[in-house]
Amino acid sequence: MTFPVVGMVGGGQLARMTHEAGIPLGIRFRILSDTPQDSAAQVVHDVTVGDYRDLDTLRAFAAGCDVLTFDHEHVPTEHLRALEADGIVVRPGPDALVHAQDKGVMRARLDAIGVPCPRHRIVADPADVTRFADEGDGYPVVLKTVRGGYDGKGVWIARSEADAAEPFRAGVPVLAEEKVDFVRELAANVVRSPHGQAVAYPVVESIQVDGVCDTVIAPAPGLSDELSAQAQQLALTVARELGVVGHLAVELFEVRRPDGGSVVLVNELAMRPHNSGHWTMDGAATSQFANHLRAVLDLPLGDPRPRARWTVMANVLGGDFPDMYPAYLHCMARDPGLKIHMYGKDVKPGRKVGHVNTYGDDLADVRERAAHAAGYLRGTIDE
Amino acid sequence: MTFPVVGMVGGGQLARMTHEAGIPLGIRFRILSDTPQDSAAQVVHDVTVGDYRDLDTLRAFAAGCDVLTFDHEHVPTEHLRALEADGIVVRPGPDALVHAQDKGVMRARLDAIGVPCPRHRIVADPADVTRFADEGDGYPVVLKTVRGGYDGKGVWIARSEADAAEPFRAGVPVLAEEKVDFVRELAANVVRSPHGQAVAYPVVESIQVDGVCDTVIAPAPGLSDELSAQAQQLALTVARELGVVGHLAVELFEVRRPDGGSVVLVNELAMRPHNSGHWTMDGAATSQFANHLRAVLDLPLGDPRPRARWTVMANVLGGDFPDMYPAYLHCMARDPGLKIHMYGKDVKPGRKVGHVNTYGDDLADVRERAAHAAGYLRGTIDE
Repeated sequence: MTFPVVGMVGGGQLARMTHEAGIPLGIRFRILSDTPQDSAAQVVHDVTVGDYRDLDTLRAFAAGCDVLTFDHEHVPTEHLRALEADGIVVRPGPDALVHAQDKGVMRARLDAIGVPCPRHRIVADPADVTRFADEGDGYPVVLKTVRGGYDGKGVWIARSEADAAEPFRAGVPVLAEEKVDFVRELAANVVRSPHGQAVAYPVVESIQVDGVCDTVIAPAPGLSDELSAQAQQLALTVARELGVVGHLAVELFEVRRPDGGSVVLVNELAMRPHNSGHWTMDGAATSQFANHLRAVLDLPLGDPRPRARWTVMANVLGGDFPDMYPAYLHCMARDPGLKIHMYGKDVKPGRKVGHVNTYGDDLADVRERAAHAAGYLRGTIDE
Repeated sequence: MTFPVVGMVGGGQLARMTHEAGIPLGIRFRILSDTPQDSAAQVVHDVTVGDYRDLDTLRAFAAGCDVLTFDHEHVPTEHLRALEADGIVVRPGPDALVHAQDKGVMRARLDAIGVPCPRHRIVADPADVTRFADEGDGYPVVLKTVRGGYDGKGVWIARSEADAAEPFRAGVPVLAEEKVDFVRELAANVVRSPHGQAVAYPVVESIQVDGVCDTVIAPAPGLSDELSAQAQQLALTVARELGVVGHLAVELFEVRRPDGGSVVLVNELAMRPHNSGHWTMDGAATSQFANHLRAVLDLPLGDPRPRARWTVMANVLGGDFPDMYPAYLHCMARDPGLKIHMYGKDVKPGRKVGHVNTYGDDLADVRERAAHAAGYLRGTIDE
């Protein structure tokens, strides 16, 4: 059979879960992993250990693959261009991926295509941050390094010009953004294939704790049909205009207008399976991982519709106890419908080591079950 | 983390799908595969290639595993006893598994615990088959070698004493059974853990073509609540009385009584994930593969309840075209809700190379979608 070979750069949990989704598809799946112990390297058959920052390593890895895709956005853009010049099929390609790698490029492009964003501009130094603040409602101001941030890293809240010095120490360009007074955070997840087919998942609510995703509720409770459709349309527009292939997560702020209505502003983009889409593994007809693979292979996409009235995802963070197995057993016994997804990672305080999904008709119950399991596994609930 | 290592003997599609189910559980999964090309060997990280008939190979494989389980029933019983004597945890253990390995032992045990079976006895030669026939309604008689059969292999329908010679040529004991005039075939799938927890899946209808499972409908249409409960109870009794650990498939004949009611008789037992349970991958809250792993690890079992009104599984057999990829693409385009499960096997005519699942509220529609996809992939439908 001529089933293709997909190579994924990165060996984290996204690669692990993509492999899980690839098994029934009958494809061959390879990863380029930083270490032999990485989350995906434990479960994938074809593992190359190497440094994704090294072009020769990337070239050797890509040589046996029909398509190259990514579990993170850190591969240097110039390497991706070099691989494309070699004839490697890179999906998403560098012209799209650069928007998820560089927040300055992303903001400029979203402005150009008329997608609403928080007020922003590249700033030169702390005095320039104060000018940016004065152009709007003053401090606080959000400062972000244009490259390299995730899960709250590379992001600062400056409450004064003195606060604004830190981000400039790394010597990379800094983007200033207004601190949006949002009602809540949403995410619009879509998947797009090379010939332009696209699917949109239900818009979800994403609840962050200390800058890290804690809970995702699908669909976002109380979201109007109008705003839901607007957010999905926005994500589909971004995917099309930026030429995204594969899964695109558009993280959004829901903001109350003076007239009482709501609008959405784009916070971040991710061009890969995303934490805000983990609920799809148990809550949608086709998971984000399966649809990402189908998209990068230019296969017809799968049904993105939900399978339950409500699905809730809660991240499992490491706590003080290195051995999570007894708690895991307890959670299974308490809730036979709990869907646990462990990443095979050593437990360290605050590290994402897994997630749980729950689903059902009663949102309060579904949320309680997910929160209980995540808390019990972390060790913050001891009932 | 002290997440355990499960070793599965066999590298077929059942091991492949068990690995898929093991990834979210966070366990380590190893296989002992006949060849490096086997279905599971393509996707599992830890693959040992070796002969399961060799005790030293089994010992070396089992040494690194917390529990040993199986994707087939062909490991010699005496090897399993030797491994247990070494202190290896073998699940299901040889005292249970022998009932799935030896049809003579199975029939004797089911008789002893009062589980209804077709009329049967071990027969010595063709003349003895005629005596067996004459004890009942005469020929035809079903003859089975007590060991080694599956998917119609090792099974003969003898219509006369002359027909009855063939099964004796292998020199292994032969079991004679009445040819049951059944209404249809059912399967009752249950999973049992070492400390005695058990779950029962909905009873399904299994449609065979040429001795090979073609379609499974979950739940079995029109099955009375009474007969359904009776079949589930029967399977739970067999699991308990035989000391089964893991998944047990009880293949049943539904037989019409003279008064118009129905009863079930046990056809075969399988102590591993089974083709009649593949629908659970997309149709139940917890798949048979996940529950098999939970059982052999003595973890609490997952919810076996269905997620859809109807789920239909159709096996994908190889046809005349070695490259199934274009048909696969077509099927995805035709039906975005189709769940395809490919096994990574080379296509050979009649070989099981995958299965599809469909689900929904309208049984006729759900059946048509599954049958179409399986037929199109095989090449017997060309719309």
